[in-house]
Amino acid sequence: MRAIIYHVATSLDGFIAHPDGSTQGFVESGEHVTDYLNQLKDYDTTIMGRKTYEYGYEFGLSPGQPAYPHMRHYIVSDHLNFDDQHDQVHLIRKNELLKTIHSLKAEIGSPIYLCGGGQLAKTLLEQQLIDELIIKLNPVLFGSGIHLFDGSCCRFELKELQKVSYDNGVQMLHYAMSYVNESVTV
Amino acid sequence: MRAIIYHVATSLDGFIAHPDGSTQGFVESGEHVTDYLNQLKDYDTTIMGRKTYEYGYEFGLSPGQPAYPHMRHYIVSDHLNFDDQHDQVHLIRKNELLKTIHSLKAEIGSPIYLCGGGQLAKTLLEQQLIDELIIKLNPVLFGSGIHLFDGSCCRFELKELQKVSYDNGVQMLHYAMSYVNESVTV
Repeated sequence: MRAIIYHVATSLDGFIAHPDGSTQGFVESGEHVTDYLNQLKDYDTTIMGRKTYEYGYEFGLSPGQPAYPHMRHYIVSDHLNFDDQHDQVHLIRKNELLKTIHSLKAEIGSPIYLCGGGQLAKTLLEQQLIDELIIKLNPVLFGSGIHLFDGSCCRFELKELQKVSYDNGVQMLHYAMSYVNESVTV
Repeated sequence: MRAIIYHVATSLDGFIAHPDGSTQGFVESGEHVTDYLNQLKDYDTTIMGRKTYEYGYEFGLSPGQPAYPHMRHYIVSDHLNFDDQHDQVHLIRKNELLKTIHSLKAEIGSPIYLCGGGQLAKTLLEQQLIDELIIKLNPVLFGSGIHLFDGSCCRFELKELQKVSYDNGVQMLHYAMSYVNESVTV
């Protein structure tokens, strides 16, 4: 089974974005960016929510095209449709989400990059489908915004796999999820 | 001027407590606890909100008595009154909060321990009255609960002063607050 890795930048207070979806304030240069770009090479598949995908439009992404050219994309949305859909880009309707995720995990291949956002992460977390968590912890407080797991009601413990502290104050924290039965709400 | 240090345990996703105020899941033993208890000796004054103070009742604190015997206590509440109030324990009504805080900061003495909770921290943060932040970052996800700054709408940058990583996965992260004028909402 392939692991799903939720790999995401957060503020020190647990937000992946401001309320409007923007990410101003995250440290955008330095060795942690180089490491992140290298880590992305290890994923051949990415899953993401609609808002996360559409956020790429602000950075030049065209609708229906892959945000990461070397990856297959699975975008979760009930309403999204593309006039020009690249063959690496697939839409998942919500009633097919779990079936599709289980199929993807059963494939042979790299770990799967869960790119965001919080709503999708919450859904997958509560189904115990996230295997690892890589946080790029930024030394900044957002105060409010889109939360790492969108207010999931579950508590989970984490087992540290790797920790890297960069000179610019960013940390890369890599954990394995530790699921216990009492945490499951589904 | 004495510094106000918000010194608090958080989950990796930015919560200081579960929705009911409990803190089950934080790592409760290990070297970080020894260090924390030693750090408490460096404070002669603590300020806290009512809920934070009353949470101590579950651990044997009697109403009106000091939670930390060597500190003067300032508890922020408009409605709290004690039948038996220790002379180290003072109540601050909300309309006196800022005046009292400014007076305390102007005194000669140790840094001031802001014990919590999120609501009081938010108020003081938005008035730029918190000087430092010490996070005991726990390798656990709470998912929801009482947030570090209770959903403050402000963004703040942090300057790292010290970082200690413990074998049990807890980190002690010590930052100076970096206030910029555009972040002030008051």
